[in-house]
Amino acid sequence: MASLQGAALIGQSGGPTSAINAAALGAIEACLDSPDITRVYGMQYGIRGVLDDKLYVLDEEDRDELKLLKYTPSSFLGTCRYKLKNPADDDTDYQRILEIFKKYDIRYFFLIGGNDSMDTCNKVSKFMLDNGYECRVMGIPKTIDNDLYGTDHCPGYGSAAKYIATTCKEVSLDARVYDIGMITIIEAMGRHAGWLVAAAALAGDYAPDLIYLPELEFDMETFLDDVDALYKKNGNVIVAVSEGIHDKDGKFISEYGASGDQTKDSFGHTQLGGLAAILAARAKERTGAKVRGIELSLLQRCASRLASQTDLDESYASGQAAVEHAVSGVTDKMIGFDVTREGGYTCELVLLPLDTVANTEKKVPREWINEAGNKVLPAFVDYALPLIQGETKQEMQDGLPRFAKLKRIIANA
Amino acid sequence: MASLQGAALIGQSGGPTSAINAAALGAIEACLDSPDITRVYGMQYGIRGVLDDKLYVLDEEDRDELKLLKYTPSSFLGTCRYKLKNPADDDTDYQRILEIFKKYDIRYFFLIGGNDSMDTCNKVSKFMLDNGYECRVMGIPKTIDNDLYGTDHCPGYGSAAKYIATTCKEVSLDARVYDIGMITIIEAMGRHAGWLVAAAALAGDYAPDLIYLPELEFDMETFLDDVDALYKKNGNVIVAVSEGIHDKDGKFISEYGASGDQTKDSFGHTQLGGLAAILAARAKERTGAKVRGIELSLLQRCASRLASQTDLDESYASGQAAVEHAVSGVTDKMIGFDVTREGGYTCELVLLPLDTVANTEKKVPREWINEAGNKVLPAFVDYALPLIQGETKQEMQDGLPRFAKLKRIIANA
Repeated sequence: MASLQGAALIGQSGGPTSAINAAALGAIEACLDSPDITRVYGMQYGIRGVLDDKLYVLDEEDRDELKLLKYTPSSFLGTCRYKLKNPADDDTDYQRILEIFKKYDIRYFFLIGGNDSMDTCNKVSKFMLDNGYECRVMGIPKTIDNDLYGTDHCPGYGSAAKYIATTCKEVSLDARVYDIGMITIIEAMGRHAGWLVAAAALAGDYAPDLIYLPELEFDMETFLDDVDALYKKNGNVIVAVSEGIHDKDGKFISEYGASGDQTKDSFGHTQLGGLAAILAARAKERTGAKVRGIELSLLQRCASRLASQTDLDESYASGQAAVEHAVSGVTDKMIGFDVTREGGYTCELVLLPLDTVANTEKKVPREWINEAGNKVLPAFVDYALPLIQGETKQEMQDGLPRFAKLKRIIANA
Repeated sequence: MASLQGAALIGQSGGPTSAINAAALGAIEACLDSPDITRVYGMQYGIRGVLDDKLYVLDEEDRDELKLLKYTPSSFLGTCRYKLKNPADDDTDYQRILEIFKKYDIRYFFLIGGNDSMDTCNKVSKFMLDNGYECRVMGIPKTIDNDLYGTDHCPGYGSAAKYIATTCKEVSLDARVYDIGMITIIEAMGRHAGWLVAAAALAGDYAPDLIYLPELEFDMETFLDDVDALYKKNGNVIVAVSEGIHDKDGKFISEYGASGDQTKDSFGHTQLGGLAAILAARAKERTGAKVRGIELSLLQRCASRLASQTDLDESYASGQAAVEHAVSGVTDKMIGFDVTREGGYTCELVLLPLDTVANTEKKVPREWINEAGNKVLPAFVDYALPLIQGETKQEMQDGLPRFAKLKRIIANA
């Protein structure tokens, strides 16, 4: 494969995580170290930055400051929920992207994100090919939801799982201190896949009594029966639920108590929230117990002190590998993880075709959930435990994490 | 002072924290090491354990396992919200306490807690004295609220403050990633004193734009004006509020949207919650912005990975000092902290009379809050920054904190 000289453009997309900046850093450092890559740009607010001609000049950042990105949560480039149209219907956005690519001589395009981002990569790549513009496109996986198809797991998930397991362990101790019983409902993210809420099971002896995943139908009466029985038996009950649990008709349980202003995001996903409070109220009604609803909220994706070092290292490696592969001639692929667990955990980076990854969601296998659908089985724990290993090597300053402070120079400013 | 031989009884009271077990460990180890102390008991569920004759035999616990208590959040002995009556009105409970003290030859009584606990210590001590039963009573301070009178700060506060500052810093990064503006409301605990919410200011450049303490009256219209102006100017607004903010008539803002089932605990305190959601809804109504309410909930008092090592060390030392002073003849005192900040932070342990500490609340000084009442000034940061220093030396196992697992043998079982 002939070498390709030109600039690289890196973007972050979808929800922020504790690990997405580690992936960006891996990609940026590999770009800076590559003799084929002439300039390194970053998209301000994801694909919107391309459409708006707002690109950060990353090669003018201080390299020591950049290094702190590995331990800085959130998406430092910014992100957006803008969805590109199907180019067969309307190629305006794609024409604009091509124009910007030509303006900056972008020959390498790296997008870090989840399913929607891989779809964007796929469409941009096909459009460039169809228009005879040579550009190597690589997807770098990132989603706390862990629902990307074809890879053992996704960067970002291990850190969120570590946060959820640790928090469940701590809440378990906190919730049992009083001489009166209590029912605690912990709400985790995860719209369609239960990987996040399942991580509650990693708390072992301290794990919630009941765990509900969105892979199965949620029946309110069965739930209240389960909670009531445990409350009568133990006095204390802790429940973990995914925001995405829904009834047999597919209606989100979070909509049961919605005030009517339920909105959808631009991908058509219903905006969720308030579920813990709804279930706590129902449990109180049924049992008369003291109840507490805890929404883990965005803390589960940005709690940098609880990031998994394994996750951060793998995330960094996936960004780095994407660039190295692209420079060596690979295009149209996403970095994936191929894992061996028997005889010790090993994680090998592999290349997956973009079009099979895009828009396919990977669910928690049914056989990893118990028959009654309210617990996670040891097979899940064997799967997830290696992903939460290792404490963050984050730098601290004055008792708080030290995050990257970047210049954020806009190319056309 | 003649030496006093007998058993020691240790209790934890009020809400759990990341540091209250460190104080208990300091007291337990000092008891175990004292030749005057014959047995070491712990109260199951605070003073209720005494009334119910449910005492843990702490000297039969494994000492290595006990050591893990320093890094185990929550109150391992359990706690209760039971309030002793005034003995002048009804001394039934006190007669029962005396009976139990005699049964176990309790000559040393240590209660770890906040204002209410110091009041309990004070009443028990006076009753024993009036009834000619020799017993040395010491209070060990603990409250994330930091509102105990006479001491520079309270064990438990530094860890909660570190959690709040870190979380505000992380949320600040997370909330600014989108290309559309957002208003984020973060709700901290602190019913009558604003020490906890003020800790948001420790996040420095990442601190919330507006911080509201319960020391001042909260005016909804002024708040909405402030938020609206900042939203128009910056696109993004982050606000931190104490659960205890109230209007000029003293009505809690959290009651503005209450569903009517507002309840009070047995100390007559109104149970709070849901404030972040109420303010987010009002801000949305006013600005039309995307809003998010985050209730830090009990995570702020049990997040052991974010405990301040300074706080844990001081907490341990206060428990230890209480026992050493009692053995040397001191009674009726609470351990307090006398701090020097100029020329480097030093913290000296001092003895404070119980009766001046009990039931007096220490507020954030008016001069540490700005004129408009929506920001905290640098004097507060100078005060609080030393308290959040140092990362936890917590032991980890399989990627999660390793907590103490105790036998919890009940004396009369």
